[in-house]
Amino acid sequence: MSLSIEPVEGIGEISPGDDFAGMLAAALGGLGPTDADIVVVTHKVVSKSEGAVVELADDGPDAHRRLVEDEAVRIVRRRGNLVIAETRHGFICANAGIDRSNAAPGTAVLLPEDPDRSARRLRDRLGAELGVRPAVVITDTFGRPWRRGLVDVAIGVAGMSPITDLRGTTDSFGRVLDVTEVNLADEVAAAADLVMGKATGICAALVRGVEFTAGPGSVRENVIRPAEEDLFR
Amino acid sequence: MSLSIEPVEGIGEISPGDDFAGMLAAALGGLGPTDADIVVVTHKVVSKSEGAVVELADDGPDAHRRLVEDEAVRIVRRRGNLVIAETRHGFICANAGIDRSNAAPGTAVLLPEDPDRSARRLRDRLGAELGVRPAVVITDTFGRPWRRGLVDVAIGVAGMSPITDLRGTTDSFGRVLDVTEVNLADEVAAAADLVMGKATGICAALVRGVEFTAGPGSVRENVIRPAEEDLFR
Repeated sequence: MSLSIEPVEGIGEISPGDDFAGMLAAALGGLGPTDADIVVVTHKVVSKSEGAVVELADDGPDAHRRLVEDEAVRIVRRRGNLVIAETRHGFICANAGIDRSNAAPGTAVLLPEDPDRSARRLRDRLGAELGVRPAVVITDTFGRPWRRGLVDVAIGVAGMSPITDLRGTTDSFGRVLDVTEVNLADEVAAAADLVMGKATGICAALVRGVEFTAGPGSVRENVIRPAEEDLFR
Repeated sequence: MSLSIEPVEGIGEISPGDDFAGMLAAALGGLGPTDADIVVVTHKVVSKSEGAVVELADDGPDAHRRLVEDEAVRIVRRRGNLVIAETRHGFICANAGIDRSNAAPGTAVLLPEDPDRSARRLRDRLGAELGVRPAVVITDTFGRPWRRGLVDVAIGVAGMSPITDLRGTTDSFGRVLDVTEVNLADEVAAAADLVMGKATGICAALVRGVEFTAGPGSVRENVIRPAEEDLFR
Protein backbone atom coordinates (compact mmCIF):
# COMPACT_ATOMS: atom_id res chain seq x y z
CA MET A 1 0.00 0.00 0.00
CA SER A 2 1.27 3.50 -0.82
CA LEU A 3 1.55 6.16 1.80
CA SER A 4 0.93 9.88 1.47
CA ILE A 5 1.68 12.78 3.77
CA GLU A 6 0.00 16.13 3.28
CA PRO A 7 0.83 19.32 5.12
CA VAL A 8 -2.18 20.80 6.91
CA GLU A 9 -2.17 24.41 5.79
CA GLY A 10 -3.97 27.49 7.01
CA ILE A 11 -3.26 27.31 10.74
CA GLY A 12 -1.66 30.56 11.82
CA GLU A 13 0.44 31.47 14.82
CA ILE A 14 -0.92 30.06 18.12
CA SER A 15 -1.04 32.03 21.38
CA PRO A 16 -1.91 30.80 24.88
CA GLY A 17 -5.64 30.21 25.13
CA ASP A 18 -6.21 29.87 21.38
CA ASP A 19 -8.58 27.10 20.34
CA PHE A 20 -5.97 25.12 18.46
CA ALA A 21 -8.14 22.00 18.28
CA GLY A 22 -10.88 23.96 16.54
CA MET A 23 -8.39 25.53 14.14
CA LEU A 24 -6.94 22.08 13.38
CA ALA A 25 -10.37 20.62 12.72
CA ALA A 26 -11.24 23.48 10.37
CA ALA A 27 -7.94 23.18 8.47
CA LEU A 28 -8.17 19.37 8.26
CA GLY A 29 -11.77 19.22 7.11
CA GLY A 30 -11.01 19.96 3.49
CA LEU A 31 -8.51 17.11 3.28
CA GLY A 32 -11.18 14.52 4.11
CA PRO A 33 -9.50 12.63 6.94
CA THR A 34 -10.80 9.17 7.88
CA ASP A 35 -10.52 6.86 10.87
CA ALA A 36 -7.71 5.03 9.03
CA ASP A 37 -5.49 8.14 8.89
CA ILE A 38 -3.04 9.63 11.38
CA VAL A 39 -2.93 13.34 12.19
CA VAL A 40 0.54 14.46 13.30
CA VAL A 41 0.94 17.71 15.25
CA THR A 42 4.13 19.37 16.50
CA HIS A 43 3.95 19.80 20.25
CA LYS A 44 4.74 23.49 20.13
CA VAL A 45 1.28 24.56 19.02
CA VAL A 46 -0.27 22.21 21.57
CA SER A 47 1.91 23.60 24.36
CA LYS A 48 1.12 27.17 23.39
CA SER A 49 -2.63 26.61 23.23
CA GLU A 50 -2.49 24.88 26.63
CA GLY A 51 -0.52 27.78 28.10
CA ALA A 52 2.69 25.77 28.64
CA VAL A 53 4.74 28.89 27.98
CA VAL A 54 6.97 30.73 30.45
CA GLU A 55 8.49 34.19 30.43
CA LEU A 56 12.24 34.38 30.75
CA ALA A 57 13.80 36.89 33.14
CA ASP A 58 16.25 37.84 30.42
CA ASP A 59 17.70 36.59 27.17
CA GLY A 60 20.94 35.24 28.68
CA PRO A 61 22.13 31.69 29.21
CA ASP A 62 21.65 31.85 33.00
CA ALA A 63 17.89 32.39 32.80
CA HIS A 64 17.69 29.57 30.30
CA ARG A 65 19.76 27.25 32.48
CA ARG A 66 17.61 27.92 35.53
CA LEU A 67 14.51 27.09 33.54
CA VAL A 68 16.00 23.82 32.28
CA GLU A 69 16.92 22.87 35.83
CA ASP A 70 13.38 23.65 36.98
CA GLU A 71 11.88 21.43 34.29
CA ALA A 72 14.31 18.55 34.70
CA VAL A 73 13.92 15.76 37.22
CA ARG A 74 17.50 14.64 36.53
CA ILE A 75 20.48 15.98 34.62
CA VAL A 76 21.81 13.10 32.52
CA ARG A 77 24.79 14.80 30.84
CA ARG A 78 26.12 18.34 30.69
CA ARG A 79 28.75 19.89 28.45
CA GLY A 80 29.05 23.65 28.16
CA ASN A 81 25.60 25.05 27.46
CA LEU A 82 24.29 21.67 26.31
CA VAL A 83 22.23 19.89 28.98
CA ILE A 84 20.69 16.47 28.41
CA ALA A 85 17.99 16.06 31.02
CA GLU A 86 15.18 13.72 32.00
CA THR A 87 11.78 15.40 32.11
CA ARG A 88 9.00 14.55 34.52
CA HIS A 89 7.35 12.66 31.63
CA GLY A 90 10.40 10.40 31.39
CA PHE A 91 11.82 11.83 28.16
CA ILE A 92 15.57 12.20 27.96
CA CYS A 93 16.35 15.12 25.68
CA ALA A 94 18.26 18.36 25.28
CA ASN A 95 17.22 21.25 27.55
CA ALA A 96 14.48 19.16 29.21
CA GLY A 97 12.32 19.79 26.14
CA ILE A 98 12.35 23.58 26.52
CA ASP A 99 12.36 25.35 23.21
CA ARG A 100 12.80 28.97 22.26
CA SER A 101 12.45 28.61 18.50
CA ASN A 102 9.05 29.76 17.29
CA ALA A 103 8.36 31.14 20.77
CA ALA A 104 7.41 34.81 21.19
CA PRO A 105 10.40 36.99 22.16
CA GLY A 106 11.23 36.70 25.85
CA THR A 107 9.37 33.42 26.25
CA ALA A 108 10.10 29.70 26.05
CA VAL A 109 7.74 26.84 25.23
CA LEU A 110 7.60 23.84 27.57
CA LEU A 111 6.40 20.34 26.77
CA PRO A 112 2.67 19.72 27.28
CA GLU A 113 1.93 18.57 30.82
CA ASP A 114 0.61 15.19 29.59
CA PRO A 115 1.13 14.76 25.83
CA ASP A 116 -0.92 11.54 25.63
CA ARG A 117 -3.85 13.37 27.22
CA SER A 118 -3.34 16.28 24.81
CA ALA A 119 -3.49 13.82 21.90
CA ARG A 120 -6.67 12.22 23.26
CA ARG A 121 -8.32 15.62 23.63
CA LEU A 122 -7.38 16.63 20.09
CA ARG A 123 -8.75 13.35 18.77
CA ASP A 124 -12.00 13.72 20.71
CA ARG A 125 -12.43 17.21 19.36
CA LEU A 126 -11.76 16.11 15.78
CA GLY A 127 -14.39 13.42 16.30
CA ALA A 128 -16.89 16.00 17.55
CA GLU A 129 -16.19 18.52 14.79
CA LEU A 130 -15.61 16.26 11.80
CA GLY A 131 -17.36 13.01 12.67
CA VAL A 132 -14.18 10.98 12.09
CA ARG A 133 -11.57 9.82 14.56
CA PRO A 134 -8.12 9.55 12.97
CA ALA A 135 -5.27 8.57 15.28
CA VAL A 136 -3.25 11.51 16.64
CA VAL A 137 0.52 11.75 17.19
CA ILE A 138 2.14 14.74 18.95
CA THR A 139 5.83 15.20 18.13
CA ASP A 140 8.99 16.86 19.34
CA THR A 141 12.45 17.08 17.80
CA PHE A 142 15.11 15.09 19.64
CA GLY A 143 18.81 14.52 19.26
CA ARG A 144 20.24 11.07 19.79
CA PRO A 145 23.47 9.58 21.03
CA TRP A 146 25.98 8.53 18.37
CA ARG A 147 24.28 10.16 15.38
CA ARG A 148 24.35 13.76 14.26
CA GLY A 149 21.20 15.57 13.28
CA LEU A 150 17.84 15.64 14.97
CA VAL A 151 14.70 13.70 14.14
CA ASP A 152 11.09 14.07 15.19
CA VAL A 153 9.72 11.49 17.62
CA ALA A 154 6.32 10.87 19.16
CA ILE A 155 5.77 12.32 22.64
CA GLY A 156 2.03 11.60 22.80
CA VAL A 157 -0.43 9.43 20.89
CA ALA A 158 -4.16 8.69 20.82
CA GLY A 159 -6.17 6.06 19.00
CA MET A 160 -3.24 3.86 18.07
CA SER A 161 -0.69 1.58 19.60
CA PRO A 162 2.65 3.38 19.22
CA ILE A 163 4.51 0.07 19.06
CA THR A 164 3.79 -2.62 16.47
CA ASP A 165 4.47 -5.94 18.10
CA LEU A 166 5.81 -8.49 15.62
CA ARG A 167 6.55 -11.19 18.17
CA GLY A 168 5.72 -14.56 16.67
CA THR A 169 5.77 -13.20 13.10
CA THR A 170 7.97 -15.24 10.77
CA ASP A 171 10.22 -14.09 7.95
CA SER A 172 10.25 -15.38 4.39
CA PHE A 173 12.26 -18.42 5.55
CA GLY A 174 9.79 -19.23 8.33
CA ARG A 175 12.18 -18.01 11.02
CA VAL A 176 10.75 -15.93 13.86
CA LEU A 177 11.84 -12.31 13.39
CA ASP A 178 14.67 -10.89 15.46
CA VAL A 179 13.06 -7.48 15.36
CA THR A 180 10.01 -7.80 17.53
CA GLU A 181 8.87 -4.28 18.26
CA VAL A 182 8.76 -1.47 15.72
CA ASN A 183 8.15 2.04 17.01
CA LEU A 184 5.53 2.96 14.45
CA ALA A 185 4.65 6.25 16.16
CA ASP A 186 8.27 7.44 15.96
CA GLU A 187 8.46 6.43 12.30
CA VAL A 188 5.25 8.36 11.60
CA ALA A 189 6.59 11.39 13.50
CA ALA A 190 9.82 11.36 11.49
CA ALA A 191 7.92 10.93 8.23
CA ALA A 192 5.57 13.84 8.95
CA ASP A 193 8.49 16.16 9.72
CA LEU A 194 9.50 15.79 6.07
CA VAL A 195 6.54 17.99 5.10
CA MET A 196 6.57 20.21 8.17
CA GLY A 197 10.19 21.26 8.49
CA LYS A 198 11.34 23.68 11.14
CA ALA A 199 10.86 27.07 9.54
CA THR A 200 7.83 26.53 7.31
CA GLY A 201 5.02 27.45 9.70
CA ILE A 202 3.37 24.07 9.02
CA CYS A 203 2.46 22.52 12.38
CA ALA A 204 0.39 19.50 11.33
CA ALA A 205 0.30 16.79 8.69
CA LEU A 206 -2.17 14.17 7.55
CA VAL A 207 -0.61 10.72 7.04
CA ARG A 208 -2.58 8.17 5.02
CA GLY A 209 -1.84 4.55 4.25
CA VAL A 210 -0.06 3.45 7.41
CA GLU A 211 -1.21 0.13 8.82
CA PHE A 212 -1.52 0.69 12.54
CA THR A 213 -3.21 -1.05 15.44
CA ALA A 214 -6.19 1.11 16.37
CA GLY A 215 -7.18 1.39 20.01
CA PRO A 216 -5.80 2.92 23.16
CA GLY A 217 -2.08 3.62 23.28
CA SER A 218 0.31 5.79 25.21
CA VAL A 219 3.84 7.02 24.71
CA ARG A 220 4.31 7.23 28.46
CA GLU A 221 3.25 3.63 29.07
CA ASN A 222 4.32 1.91 25.85
CA VAL A 223 7.39 3.81 24.61
CA ILE A 224 9.39 5.17 27.51
CA ARG A 225 11.80 2.44 28.50
CA PRO A 226 11.69 1.75 32.23
CA ALA A 227 14.97 2.57 33.99
CA GLU A 228 15.52 -1.08 34.92
CA GLU A 229 15.42 -2.12 31.22
CA ASP A 230 17.65 0.71 30.08
CA LEU A 231 21.38 0.28 29.50
CA PHE A 232 22.19 3.99 29.03
CA ARG A 233 21.14 5.81 32.21
CA MET B 1 4.42 20.01 -0.86
CA SER B 2 2.88 16.56 -0.36
CA LEU B 3 5.01 13.50 -0.01
CA SER B 4 4.32 9.99 -1.27
CA ILE B 5 6.01 6.69 -0.57
CA GLU B 6 5.46 3.73 -2.82
CA PRO B 7 6.66 0.19 -2.17
CA VAL B 8 8.85 -1.16 -4.99
CA GLU B 9 7.27 -4.50 -5.78
CA GLY B 10 8.45 -7.48 -7.78
CA ILE B 11 11.93 -7.99 -6.33
CA GLY B 12 12.19 -11.57 -5.11
CA GLU B 13 14.54 -13.20 -2.65
CA ILE B 14 18.20 -12.18 -3.09
CA SER B 15 21.13 -14.61 -2.90
CA PRO B 16 24.87 -13.85 -2.85
CA GLY B 17 25.99 -12.83 -6.34
CA ASP B 18 22.51 -11.83 -7.54
CA ASP B 19 22.40 -8.65 -9.60
CA PHE B 20 20.28 -6.74 -7.12
CA ALA B 21 20.98 -3.37 -8.75
CA GLY B 22 19.62 -4.67 -12.05
CA MET B 23 16.55 -6.15 -10.35
CA LEU B 24 15.96 -2.83 -8.53
CA ALA B 25 16.25 -0.85 -11.77
CA ALA B 26 13.78 -3.17 -13.51
CA ALA B 27 11.29 -2.99 -10.64
CA LEU B 28 11.62 0.80 -10.29
CA GLY B 29 11.32 1.60 -13.97
CA GLY B 30 7.54 1.33 -14.07
CA LEU B 31 7.18 3.85 -11.24
CA GLY B 32 8.88 6.59 -13.24
CA PRO B 33 11.51 7.79 -10.76
CA THR B 34 13.14 11.19 -11.28
CA ASP B 35 16.28 12.94 -10.07
CA ALA B 36 14.14 14.64 -7.40
CA ASP B 37 13.12 11.33 -5.77
CA ILE B 38 14.81 9.17 -3.16
CA VAL B 39 15.08 5.39 -3.49
CA VAL B 40 15.27 3.66 -0.11
CA VAL B 41 16.63 0.13 0.14
CA THR B 42 16.95 -2.11 3.21
CA HIS B 43 20.55 -3.11 3.70
CA LYS B 44 19.79 -6.81 3.84
CA VAL B 45 19.32 -7.22 0.10
CA VAL B 46 22.43 -5.13 -0.52
CA SER B 47 24.50 -7.22 1.89
CA LYS B 48 23.24 -10.46 0.36
CA SER B 49 23.98 -9.39 -3.20
CA GLU B 50 27.47 -8.26 -2.13
CA GLY B 51 28.10 -11.60 -0.40
CA ALA B 52 28.18 -10.13 3.12
CA VAL B 53 26.68 -13.35 4.47
CA VAL B 54 28.34 -15.84 6.80
CA GLU B 55 27.55 -19.42 7.72
CA LEU B 56 27.04 -20.15 11.39
CA ALA B 57 28.68 -23.19 12.96
CA ASP B 58 25.39 -24.01 14.65
CA ASP B 59 22.08 -22.46 15.63
CA GLY B 60 23.03 -21.81 19.26
CA PRO B 61 23.78 -18.57 21.09
CA ASP B 62 27.52 -19.29 21.32
CA ALA B 63 28.08 -19.28 17.56
CA HIS B 64 26.06 -16.09 17.34
CA ARG B 65 28.01 -14.43 20.13
CA ARG B 66 31.36 -15.30 18.56
CA LEU B 67 30.19 -13.78 15.29
CA VAL B 68 29.08 -10.57 17.02
CA GLU B 69 32.44 -10.32 18.76
CA ASP B 70 34.21 -10.80 15.42
CA GLU B 71 32.23 -8.00 13.80
CA ALA B 72 32.48 -5.57 16.71
CA VAL B 73 35.37 -3.21 17.28
CA ARG B 74 34.08 -2.46 20.78
CA ILE B 75 31.40 -3.85 23.07
CA VAL B 76 29.45 -0.87 24.42
CA ARG B 77 26.95 -2.66 26.71
CA ARG B 78 26.06 -6.26 27.40
CA ARG B 79 23.12 -7.77 29.26
CA GLY B 80 22.30 -11.45 28.88
CA ASN B 81 22.18 -12.26 25.16
CA LEU B 82 21.81 -8.58 24.23
CA VAL B 83 25.05 -7.02 23.04
CA ILE B 84 25.28 -3.36 22.00
CA ALA B 85 28.46 -3.01 19.95
CA GLU B 86 30.30 -0.53 17.81
CA THR B 87 30.93 -1.74 14.28
CA ARG B 88 33.97 -0.94 12.18
CA HIS B 89 31.78 1.60 10.34
CA GLY B 90 31.20 3.45 13.61
CA PHE B 91 27.57 2.39 14.12
CA ILE B 92 26.52 1.56 17.66
CA CYS B 93 23.76 -1.02 17.50
CA ALA B 94 22.54 -4.39 18.74
CA ASN B 95 24.57 -7.44 17.69
CA ALA B 96 27.04 -5.29 15.71
CA GLY B 97 24.46 -5.15 12.93
CA ILE B 98 24.34 -8.92 12.41
CA ASP B 99 20.89 -10.12 11.51
CA ARG B 100 19.41 -13.56 11.17
CA SER B 101 15.88 -12.57 10.17
CA ASN B 102 15.28 -13.07 6.46
CA ALA B 103 18.63 -14.88 6.22
CA ALA B 104 18.75 -18.40 4.80
CA PRO B 105 18.77 -21.10 7.53
CA GLY B 106 22.22 -21.51 9.09
CA THR B 107 23.43 -18.11 7.89
CA ALA B 108 23.55 -14.54 9.14
CA VAL B 109 23.65 -11.31 7.18
CA LEU B 110 26.33 -8.72 7.98
CA LEU B 111 26.28 -5.01 7.23
CA PRO B 112 27.66 -3.99 3.83
CA GLU B 113 31.39 -3.35 3.99
CA ASP B 114 30.93 0.32 3.02
CA PRO B 115 27.23 1.28 2.86
CA ASP B 116 27.90 4.74 1.35
CA ARG B 117 29.82 3.07 -1.48
CA SER B 118 27.01 0.55 -1.91
CA ALA B 119 24.55 3.43 -2.22
CA ARG B 120 26.75 5.19 -4.79
CA ARG B 121 27.01 2.03 -6.85
CA LEU B 122 23.26 1.48 -6.80
CA ARG B 123 22.72 5.09 -7.84
CA ASP B 124 25.24 4.83 -10.67
CA ARG B 125 23.56 1.68 -11.91
CA LEU B 126 20.09 3.25 -11.79
CA GLY B 127 21.52 6.12 -13.81
CA ALA B 128 22.92 3.74 -16.39
CA GLU B 129 19.76 1.62 -16.65
CA LEU B 130 17.04 4.23 -16.30
CA GLY B 131 18.70 7.51 -17.30
CA VAL B 132 17.72 9.17 -14.01
CA ARG B 133 19.69 9.58 -10.82
CA PRO B 134 17.46 9.65 -7.76
CA ALA B 135 19.20 9.86 -4.38
CA VAL B 136 19.70 6.50 -2.64
CA VAL B 137 19.38 5.69 1.06
CA ILE B 138 20.35 2.29 2.50
CA THR B 139 18.70 1.47 5.84
CA ASP B 140 18.98 -0.75 8.87
CA THR B 141 16.72 -1.17 11.88
CA PHE B 142 18.21 0.14 15.12
CA GLY B 143 17.09 0.28 18.73
CA ARG B 144 17.76 3.38 20.79
CA PRO B 145 18.46 4.22 24.39
CA TRP B 146 15.46 5.33 26.49
CA ARG B 147 12.73 4.45 23.98
CA ARG B 148 11.16 1.09 23.26
CA GLY B 149 10.65 -0.11 19.72
CA LEU B 150 13.01 0.01 16.78
CA VAL B 151 13.12 2.45 13.89
CA ASP B 152 14.87 2.37 10.54
CA VAL B 153 17.85 4.68 10.10
CA ALA B 154 20.16 5.49 7.20
CA ILE B 155 23.46 3.58 7.12
CA GLY B 156 24.51 4.75 3.65
CA VAL B 157 23.49 7.50 1.24
CA ALA B 158 24.32 8.72 -2.26
CA GLY B 159 23.34 11.83 -4.13
CA MET B 160 22.09 13.76 -1.13
CA SER B 161 23.31 15.44 2.00
CA PRO B 162 22.00 13.28 4.87
CA ILE B 163 21.86 16.30 7.17
CA THR B 164 19.86 19.44 6.41
CA ASP B 165 21.72 22.33 7.93
CA LEU B 166 19.37 25.06 9.13
CA ARG B 167 22.04 27.21 10.78
CA GLY B 168 21.17 30.83 10.23
CA THR B 169 17.53 30.07 9.37
CA THR B 170 15.07 32.12 11.37
CA ASP B 171 11.72 31.16 12.84
CA SER B 172 8.43 33.00 12.38
CA PHE B 173 9.53 35.53 15.04
CA GLY B 174 12.85 36.18 13.32
CA ARG B 175 14.80 34.26 15.96
CA VAL B 176 17.57 31.94 14.76
CA LEU B 177 16.41 28.33 15.13
CA ASP B 178 17.62 26.26 18.08
CA VAL B 179 17.41 23.15 15.93
CA THR B 180 20.21 23.53 13.45
CA GLU B 181 20.72 20.11 11.93
CA VAL B 182 17.92 17.79 10.87
CA ASN B 183 18.83 14.23 9.98
CA LEU B 184 16.80 14.09 6.80
CA ALA B 185 18.22 10.70 5.77
CA ASP B 186 17.09 9.12 9.03
CA GLU B 187 13.63 10.65 8.66
CA VAL B 188 13.40 9.30 5.11
CA ALA B 189 14.56 5.86 6.30
CA ALA B 190 11.92 5.80 9.03
CA ALA B 191 9.23 6.97 6.63
CA ALA B 192 10.07 4.32 4.04
CA ASP B 193 9.87 1.56 6.63
CA LEU B 194 6.17 2.36 6.97
CA VAL B 195 5.57 0.74 3.56
CA MET B 196 8.26 -1.92 3.83
CA GLY B 197 7.66 -3.48 7.23
CA LYS B 198 9.65 -6.42 8.47
CA ALA B 199 7.75 -9.41 7.15
CA THR B 200 6.33 -8.16 3.86
CA GLY B 201 9.13 -9.05 1.44
CA ILE B 202 9.26 -5.41 0.28
CA CYS B 203 12.92 -4.32 0.29
CA ALA B 204 12.73 -0.93 -1.43
CA ALA B 205 10.55 2.15 -1.60
CA LEU B 206 10.33 5.24 -3.79
CA VAL B 207 9.94 8.47 -1.83
CA ARG B 208 8.74 11.56 -3.71
CA GLY B 209 8.29 15.12 -2.58
CA VAL B 210 11.13 15.47 -0.06
CA GLU B 211 13.18 18.65 -0.37
CA PHE B 212 16.78 17.54 -0.03
CA THR B 213 20.18 18.98 -0.83
CA ALA B 214 21.42 17.12 -3.88
CA GLY B 215 25.13 16.38 -4.18
CA PRO B 216 27.66 14.19 -2.49
CA GLY B 217 26.91 13.00 1.03
CA SER B 218 27.99 10.27 3.38
CA VAL B 219 26.58 8.69 6.50
CA ARG B 220 30.06 7.83 7.63
CA GLU B 221 31.35 11.39 7.33
CA ASN B 222 28.23 13.44 8.01
CA VAL B 223 26.12 11.39 10.43
CA ILE B 224 28.33 9.33 12.71
CA ARG B 225 29.13 11.52 15.67
CA PRO B 226 32.84 11.60 16.42
CA ALA B 227 33.73 10.09 19.79
CA GLU B 228 34.99 13.43 21.09
CA GLU B 229 31.56 15.05 20.46
CA ASP B 230 29.63 12.18 21.94
CA LEU B 231 28.32 12.20 25.50
CA PHE B 232 27.19 8.54 25.59
CA ARG B 233 30.25 6.40 24.87
